[in-house]
Amino acid sequence: MNDRDRKPKFRRGGGKDPARGPESGRRPPWRGREASSDGPAILYGWHTVVAALANPERHIRKLMLTENAARRLADENIATRVTPDIVRPALIDQRLGPDAVHQGLLAEADPLPSPDIDTLTQEGVVLVLDQITDPHNVGAIMRSAAAFAVKAIVTTARHSPEATGVLAKSASGALELVPLVTVQNLARALTELNDQGFMTVGLDSEGSEDLGSVTLREPLALTCSVVARLDMPGEIKSLNVSNAAVLALYIGASRLGLMGKK
Amino acid sequence: MNDRDRKPKFRRGGGKDPARGPESGRRPPWRGREASSDGPAILYGWHTVVAALANPERHIRKLMLTENAARRLADENIATRVTPDIVRPALIDQRLGPDAVHQGLLAEADPLPSPDIDTLTQEGVVLVLDQITDPHNVGAIMRSAAAFAVKAIVTTARHSPEATGVLAKSASGALELVPLVTVQNLARALTELNDQGFMTVGLDSEGSEDLGSVTLREPLALTCSVVARLDMPGEIKSLNVSNAAVLALYIGASRLGLMGKK
Repeated sequence: MNDRDRKPKFRRGGGKDPARGPESGRRPPWRGREASSDGPAILYGWHTVVAALANPERHIRKLMLTENAARRLADENIATRVTPDIVRPALIDQRLGPDAVHQGLLAEADPLPSPDIDTLTQEGVVLVLDQITDPHNVGAIMRSAAAFAVKAIVTTARHSPEATGVLAKSASGALELVPLVTVQNLARALTELNDQGFMTVGLDSEGSEDLGSVTLREPLALTCSVVARLDMPGEIKSLNVSNAAVLALYIGASRLGLMGKK
Repeated sequence: MNDRDRKPKFRRGGGKDPARGPESGRRPPWRGREASSDGPAILYGWHTVVAALANPERHIRKLMLTENAARRLADENIATRVTPDIVRPALIDQRLGPDAVHQGLLAEADPLPSPDIDTLTQEGVVLVLDQITDPHNVGAIMRSAAAFAVKAIVTTARHSPEATGVLAKSASGALELVPLVTVQNLARALTELNDQGFMTVGLDSEGSEDLGSVTLREPLALTCSVVARLDMPGEIKSLNVSNAAVLALYIGASRLGLMGKK
């Protein structure tokens, strides 16, 4: 077995059944389980709220801060943009539940708009998420996507968690940095990406091709699915999907020479 | 900038202040925030419970199954080892809370014993976790460790989540596959690993060395810390720690020629 055989297997091509769904609308509302599309995005935690405050596209409806958090923002010359409510930490605890590490910051904001898929520039890497439902995983993937300078994340309006709460916290500010393109039908989105010149590569257990042996080129669309499996040396054969996604991003970015670019 | 400069930076050496703590005992109890060391490990979800049932070292105290789960175990010829309580799903929901995806299986089991660090064989890769407190992250790291055939995970008795509940669920059976070595003092553990012939490499923001440019050898101890930062091309400079860990494992395993070994 040579070195190439030892690399994780990736699937080339869109990898979705090209059957088309009944819906065809573009610019769908960003729907989720926690709120309607008109509901606010709930943003908490230092990185998440500070990134939102730094994003001129993000409309902040309401900001709750503890005294300590307000002082820390002032110390770092970060403008709050709206007049904050200064509250006791317990009030934020009560709002978010005891497990949320909010660090004294809670913002209610408008959800960000979802760009149309045909507005993507034809460069770099976009990441396509196929039915990844756990908000911790989607948030971690968004954070890694921002770290790898991914141009956009494409996801379905259904079967995807809303860009709020735990997802926003796990994304650690990446919601403000990586455009989230929501589509109704992923197979059609992959076809559109192909038509726009993107090479599409999927990560899949059935893959007979090896990402290491495929000549990658920009623009590249990497698809991560909940069923992603890699050819792993150990007894467990599948990775957590956010771990699989970061490996795909690393392999893709390394081979495209994007690591270390600033 | 050449290719090597573009790889993530890693720190060589133990990387901990070698100051020694006041405690010196070995084989510490596996303590956590959720229960005393004598409390049961709470295991739920298909992969987690099935892996526990397959592990002869795991003493099952009690097993709650829904009818569907009991039928599925029988269909797959999996022995339950103890007489299960057949219960309604709502009873398991009530026990675990509404967010736990238990798939009809809940086991109470003895925690697994923690091996002594000097019982590790001098081969392959061990992963050292430095103050990684989020149980989702530790569980995802354990799952990835099992996928990369990591020989053991070394972690501190304090500042680490207990091997139960969400951690066990996120580990997806890996608790039964990767020995968890708990130590009182991580700096001392790294010294012991060095004395036993392990090369120790840490992943750190301050790292001036590049894992890609260091000649790795077995046995290798990779340290992942909550402050791990990589030289990333995007605007976010740090990854979720489980994502950083899987990248370190991939780079380490690839360079040691361990990928694809069965």
